[in-house]
Amino acid sequence: MLELRLVQGSLLKKVLEAIKDLVNDANFDCSATGFSLQAMDSSHVALVSLLLRSEGFEHYRCDRNISMGMNLNNMSKMLKCAGNDDIITIKADDGGDTVTFMFESPTQDKISDFEMKLMDIDSEHLGIPEAEYQSIVRMPSAEFARICKDLASIGDTVVISVTKEGVKFSTRGDIGTANIVLRQNTTVDKPEEATIIEMNEPVSLTFALRYMNSFTKATTLSSTVTISLSSELPVVVEYKIAEMGYIRFYLAPKIEEDEDETKPEA
Amino acid sequence: MLELRLVQGSLLKKVLEAIKDLVNDANFDCSATGFSLQAMDSSHVALVSLLLRSEGFEHYRCDRNISMGMNLNNMSKMLKCAGNDDIITIKADDGGDTVTFMFESPTQDKISDFEMKLMDIDSEHLGIPEAEYQSIVRMPSAEFARICKDLASIGDTVVISVTKEGVKFSTRGDIGTANIVLRQNTTVDKPEEATIIEMNEPVSLTFALRYMNSFTKATTLSSTVTISLSSELPVVVEYKIAEMGYIRFYLAPKIEEDEDETKPEA
Amino acid sequence: MLELRLVQGSLLKKVLEAIKDLVNDANFDCSATGFSLQAMDSSHVALVSLLLRSEGFEHYRCDRNISMGMNLNNMSKMLKCAGNDDIITIKADDGGDTVTFMFESPTQDKISDFEMKLMDIDSEHLGIPEAEYQSIVRMPSAEFARICKDLASIGDTVVISVTKEGVKFSTRGDIGTANIVLRQNTTVDKPEEATIIEMNEPVSLTFALRYMNSFTKATTLSSTVTISLSSELPVVVEYKIAEMGYIRFYLAPKIEEDEDETKPEA
Repeated sequence: MLELRLVQGSLLKKVLEAIKDLVNDANFDCSATGFSLQAMDSSHVALVSLLLRSEGFEHYRCDRNISMGMNLNNMSKMLKCAGNDDIITIKADDGGDTVTFMFESPTQDKISDFEMKLMDIDSEHLGIPEAEYQSIVRMPSAEFARICKDLASIGDTVVISVTKEGVKFSTRGDIGTANIVLRQNTTVDKPEEATIIEMNEPVSLTFALRYMNSFTKATTLSSTVTISLSSELPVVVEYKIAEMGYIRFYLAPKIEEDEDETKPEA
Repeated sequence: MLELRLVQGSLLKKVLEAIKDLVNDANFDCSATGFSLQAMDSSHVALVSLLLRSEGFEHYRCDRNISMGMNLNNMSKMLKCAGNDDIITIKADDGGDTVTFMFESPTQDKISDFEMKLMDIDSEHLGIPEAEYQSIVRMPSAEFARICKDLASIGDTVVISVTKEGVKFSTRGDIGTANIVLRQNTTVDKPEEATIIEMNEPVSLTFALRYMNSFTKATTLSSTVTISLSSELPVVVEYKIAEMGYIRFYLAPKIEEDEDETKPEA
Repeated sequence: MLELRLVQGSLLKKVLEAIKDLVNDANFDCSATGFSLQAMDSSHVALVSLLLRSEGFEHYRCDRNISMGMNLNNMSKMLKCAGNDDIITIKADDGGDTVTFMFESPTQDKISDFEMKLMDIDSEHLGIPEAEYQSIVRMPSAEFARICKDLASIGDTVVISVTKEGVKFSTRGDIGTANIVLRQNTTVDKPEEATIIEMNEPVSLTFALRYMNSFTKATTLSSTVTISLSSELPVVVEYKIAEMGYIRFYLAPKIEEDEDETKPEA
């Protein structure tokens, strides 16, 4: 039997909004450790990894490891029916073929339960090795979202280049070129407004903006985002979920066939 | 001659927004008692009944009973041109074929008059007998609107079941089932937040969500809604219009051909 | 070399939003006096004239007169990437074929530069003679925008009639007629809420609402609008740009082929 009670139910609503456009169907894996998901996007280019640790739930009962296949769009439809202040409980019977989402309003005057059929989904769990990154940028998540959106109005790819002084986001399209430079900045009033660059080696990598813009749907989950870059590895775009876990997006850099096409300006 | 001056003109704007998607053309009936309308929706399934009592108008002159046929979409276009704080006056000459809507801004610096052609509309006035209902639910109108909208994302019909403890709204669709239970709740800070159940007999009836969602366009007119249910009668969904009257929607329950299909869970 | 630094960069963003739907491509003319534009709309019916005086820029360097052809839609895409509090600098080299827009965030932590190709655009600069107008109406720009929008829901043209008492906006369409009268009103709390009529001669002229509605996109630039009318001249709809200049729209009155069609009511 599975029963996970999440007082801050809006977190789960936001998680679904963050991933439902990227992934259609996925297995949620539940164990003593936590509630997690790992899935490729529908075009098999990007990988999403979600973890909500068991400690973050008010009540967490998971008698045995269970993998529940869900259509994320349908799950999102149901979670949208939860109020933003509702407590959400996920319930499933061992060996059952349905999952139930229960929503309790803060005053307990309104109790909803939504039952959804589970699906059989083939999936292989990829081991993601811990890695050292050449550069790690931590910045306000809203700023990262704004930059990806702005650059997508000019071009299709973004070159992210990190030096000690800052991080540069560049693109090039039919109507011209764009370069946006953020300086390292740690002397801010609020820690979440800082832009912090941890650079072991300078790095310059190219990514599809379409995916970056999709990742930024997780902006509501965290006021900061961490971008980990290495020339041989997929970028990791990570949003922490307060005291519970994280959502991480992985995307392989584009190999630049024609260097001139997307070269950032010096 | 007809001249009806309504200081809170926004009420008339809201009334039109509430009914214009349901009813295309309708006769407004004006008598010494008030300004009223009764009309079937365009698919002849639901009935709308509106009353604005003469006492609610600052000035009310209606020399003889008159029935004015109007296209509600065109009338709504004109009323949208009134400011929310404008005074609205409805004017018509006896035997004329037009109606004039006059809008006065609060400062009297802007005076608008909009003239619209009247239409000949055949309609029979249905007598709606007073009835005893098995159950009457009074609840916050925004909550009712939210429930109808949420359930429509899952299914096409709603089963409304009333017991002493509360009222349950259920639906079933391709992606699963949903049950929303509201408890009777009279100990609230503001009276309009109460959910009050007056039950003579338990009742469980099925309705098309499409119509229910259309009715909830009247939510702006009142903070509470009253739902009167009896197994032999159309449901009445009523929104009071402050100190002036009401807008009532009538809808016949669906006969359940296949009980299993939409049966609410116990 | 050209380098124009505008501290209130949002002004330039608003200017582009005001004209980009009316004009596709246009030459921006830069001289010691200021940064200006004059262009016909794409159907050659309306004329736009923009002036941003050099004194309004924090730094204004223009070594020689230069005319830069730009696609306004692409320019707008780039300016949309500037924050509302950003400082915008326009830069171009003599004889170069590109223009650069540089955006600096207030904290200087984010610096963006967007480079756009210039275009060769044939254009003749029309001399617009100073003229005496029969009537000049100054009114709140939001009120003018509201009136044009409201009337466009009823008809295609607006008759603007000025008398000493006020200004009347009228239209007529399939669903009826509309007249909106604004009274002269100078005793208001805030000067920008006044409606001031300077009438040498009464005037009544007809214009296409489509263009008027397009002009009102400049409403964000100024809280008041000035409408100058003469029976022999194009109307001038002017929005002042705080301490810097103006944006003026010119539109020829329609000759009324069938007087009855659009005649305002007395």
